[in-house]
Amino acid sequence: MQRRSFLKKAGLGAVAGTAAVAAPVFAQANPKISWKMTSTYGPSLPPLFGAAQTFCKMIEEASDGQFSIRLYPAGEIVPGYGVMDAVSNNTVECGQTASYYYYGKDPTFCFDTAVPFGLNTRQMTAWMEQGDGLKLMRELFAPRHIVNFPMGNTGTQMGGWYRKPINTLADLKGLTMRTAGFAGEVLSRMGVVPQQIPPGDIYPSLEKGTLDAVEFVGPVDDEKLGLFKVAKYYYYPGWWEGSAQVSLYVNDGVYEKLPKHYQSLISLASSYAGMQMTANYDAHNSEALRRLIANGTTLKAFPRDVMDAAFAASNVLYKEFCDKDAGFKKVFENYMAFRDGTVPWFRIAEGSYDNYLGIALANAKK
Amino acid sequence: MQRRSFLKKAGLGAVAGTAAVAAPVFAQANPKISWKMTSTYGPSLPPLFGAAQTFCKMIEEASDGQFSIRLYPAGEIVPGYGVMDAVSNNTVECGQTASYYYYGKDPTFCFDTAVPFGLNTRQMTAWMEQGDGLKLMRELFAPRHIVNFPMGNTGTQMGGWYRKPINTLADLKGLTMRTAGFAGEVLSRMGVVPQQIPPGDIYPSLEKGTLDAVEFVGPVDDEKLGLFKVAKYYYYPGWWEGSAQVSLYVNDGVYEKLPKHYQSLISLASSYAGMQMTANYDAHNSEALRRLIANGTTLKAFPRDVMDAAFAASNVLYKEFCDKDAGFKKVFENYMAFRDGTVPWFRIAEGSYDNYLGIALANAKK
Repeated sequence: MQRRSFLKKAGLGAVAGTAAVAAPVFAQANPKISWKMTSTYGPSLPPLFGAAQTFCKMIEEASDGQFSIRLYPAGEIVPGYGVMDAVSNNTVECGQTASYYYYGKDPTFCFDTAVPFGLNTRQMTAWMEQGDGLKLMRELFAPRHIVNFPMGNTGTQMGGWYRKPINTLADLKGLTMRTAGFAGEVLSRMGVVPQQIPPGDIYPSLEKGTLDAVEFVGPVDDEKLGLFKVAKYYYYPGWWEGSAQVSLYVNDGVYEKLPKHYQSLISLASSYAGMQMTANYDAHNSEALRRLIANGTTLKAFPRDVMDAAFAASNVLYKEFCDKDAGFKKVFENYMAFRDGTVPWFRIAEGSYDNYLGIALANAKK
Repeated sequence: MQRRSFLKKAGLGAVAGTAAVAAPVFAQANPKISWKMTSTYGPSLPPLFGAAQTFCKMIEEASDGQFSIRLYPAGEIVPGYGVMDAVSNNTVECGQTASYYYYGKDPTFCFDTAVPFGLNTRQMTAWMEQGDGLKLMRELFAPRHIVNFPMGNTGTQMGGWYRKPINTLADLKGLTMRTAGFAGEVLSRMGVVPQQIPPGDIYPSLEKGTLDAVEFVGPVDDEKLGLFKVAKYYYYPGWWEGSAQVSLYVNDGVYEKLPKHYQSLISLASSYAGMQMTANYDAHNSEALRRLIANGTTLKAFPRDVMDAAFAASNVLYKEFCDKDAGFKKVFENYMAFRDGTVPWFRIAEGSYDNYLGIALANAKK
C-alpha cells in the first residue's frame, strides 16, 4: 500500500497507468520479512542443525529472497533448552527443538518427539499427517502461543554407551545415565539414575565418571561427541526412541500475520528439511557405525530381560500418567490406538521384506 | 526491467525515487504461469492420484495463486503409460508416473522406482537425496528432456493375488501374472508368464481367468480394484518392490524458463506431496488389510524356496544386464553399493526395534 500512497501524494496516478496499478498487487505478493530462529542444536551436530539451515535456505529461495530467517545455534541468543519459552514469548519468531525436552512443563509434549515403545519414523509421520497427531499437537501447543511443525526424524536411536556391559537387568541398578524425556521415568523404575544434560556437557561427564552411561542419538551424532573414547559398549535398540521427531516452533502471533502463501512455505520447507535430515541419518549412520567398530566399540543388543522389563515398566507408567492426567490420556489413547493398528501391518510386507533381505545379504557375504 | 524502461520513456526516473526502483523487483517476483499435468493414475487410486492433487494445490498456495497447474487423470489427454513421451515432447509441461513403466525404453529407469531386492522406502529416499541417486537419475532423464523429482513411495508392496495357493516354487510355473518393470523378467525366469496391463484392465482380466495372478500395490489400492473378489490368496512380501517411488516429470525447457523461486517450489511441493502419499498408505493399509481378511482373503507369506529362487534369479539377471549395458551397470553398482552399506545398519536399531515391538504387541493381545 506504500507505493499506492506515494503515487497519490505525487499526483502521478493517471500518468503511471497500467504498470503502476499492477505494481501494488505484486508488491503485496512477496513482502520483505526477516525472522530470527534459535536452535537446541549447533553446527557440531550436522544432520540436526543442518535441518534448520536447510529450512532457512529453502524459505529464502522459494520466496525469491524476500522472507529471510537468521539462524542462531544453541546458546548464542537463547540456551539450548530455552527454545520453547523463547518462541512462546516471541523473543525469536521461530525455533528448532525436540518437544520432549519440555517434559517437565508437560509430559504430553513427549508424544511430539518420542515415547517408549512408540511409533517408528514412518508410523510417526503417518500419525502426524494422516492421523490425528498434528491436530492434537497443535491443540497442545496453542496455549503456549506456538504453532508446531514436524521437521525431521532421527530414526530408531541407539540404546546408548555403557562403561560396563549390561548382561542382565540387574546391571542397570544404580547406573547414572544421561537421557531425555519420559524415558528417564521408565529407566528410574528399572533402577537407573537418569540425568538430563545438554549435548555439550555429555562427553566431559562421561569421561570424569560422573556418568556411567549416555544415550544421545545414533552413530553419526554419537561419533561426533566422541563417546566411543570413554565407553566401550554400544547397545541397541533405543526402545525409548523407536523414532524421535524434531520440531519447528513458530510464534502464533507472527505466524497469523504472515501472508497465506508464506504460511504454506513454512509447511513445505519444514517438511523438506525434515526429509533431508532423516535421509542424512539413513545415508550416513552405517559408515559411522563401521568407523566406531573399527575404533574398538563393542556393539551389543539389550538382553531380552531388559527389553521385557522396559516394556512392562513403560506400560505401568503410562497407566499411572493416564490416571492422573486427562490431557496425557487423551493423546496417549489416540497415539497408542494408531500404533496398535499399524505395527501389525508393518510386520507383514515391510518387516518380512527387510528381514529377508538382511539375512540374504549377510549370507551372500559369507 | 519493463517498468524501468516505462519510467525512462515517461521521463519520471528522478520523481519516482526509491519506491519505483523497488517495484520492478516485485513485479518480476510472482509471474502468472499456467501448466498442464497428466498422470498415469486417476481418482480411483486416492493415495497415488492424491499426491498429484496435493502437489498442484501446494504450488498454487505457495505462489499466492500465481503458478497454477491443471491436473488430468490417465486417459483424459494422454494415455496412462504415455506420461514420459508427453513430458519429453512438451505436450504437457509435467506429469506424474512411475519410471519403471518405461522399462521397455531403457531398463535403467527401474532404479528410479523399484528393482527386485532393492532399497526400502527410507533407504530409497536416502540414496536419492543424500547419495548419488538423484544426480544419476537426472543424468538418465536429461536426453529425454525431463527433469525428474521423487514424489512419494508406496512402501513395500504386497506380492499379489493368486487364484490358487503357491506352496512351492513349482506352483509358479506357467502362471499368467500382471506385473510391471524388471520384475517381469525375473518372474519369467521362475516360470511365470508376465503381462503389463494398465490398472483399469486388471480386474476384468483376472475375473475372466485371462490372468491367474495379479500384483498391483498393497491393501489400500488392491481393495479399490476389488481383486479380493476374484482371487483368494494374498501373498507377501513383494520382493520386486521393497519400495516403489513415484516420480514427477517436468519438461526441461519449461523448467529452465521458470524463475528460480518457482523451481524451488517444485522441489518443495513434490517432496511434501510425496511425504503425504507415503503417510496415507502407512496410515490406511492396515485397515484395508483387516477388511480384506474379513472378506475372506487368505494372507500368506511366500515360501522360502520362492524367495530364494527369486533372489538368485534376480542376481543372475542383474549380471546379464550389467554385462550388456554400461548405463545400467553404472547405476546398478552405485545403487547396490548403497543397499549393501545401509541394509546391515537398518537391521540393528530399526529392525530390532520393529521386531521386538511387533512381537511384544502380539503377545500382549493373547
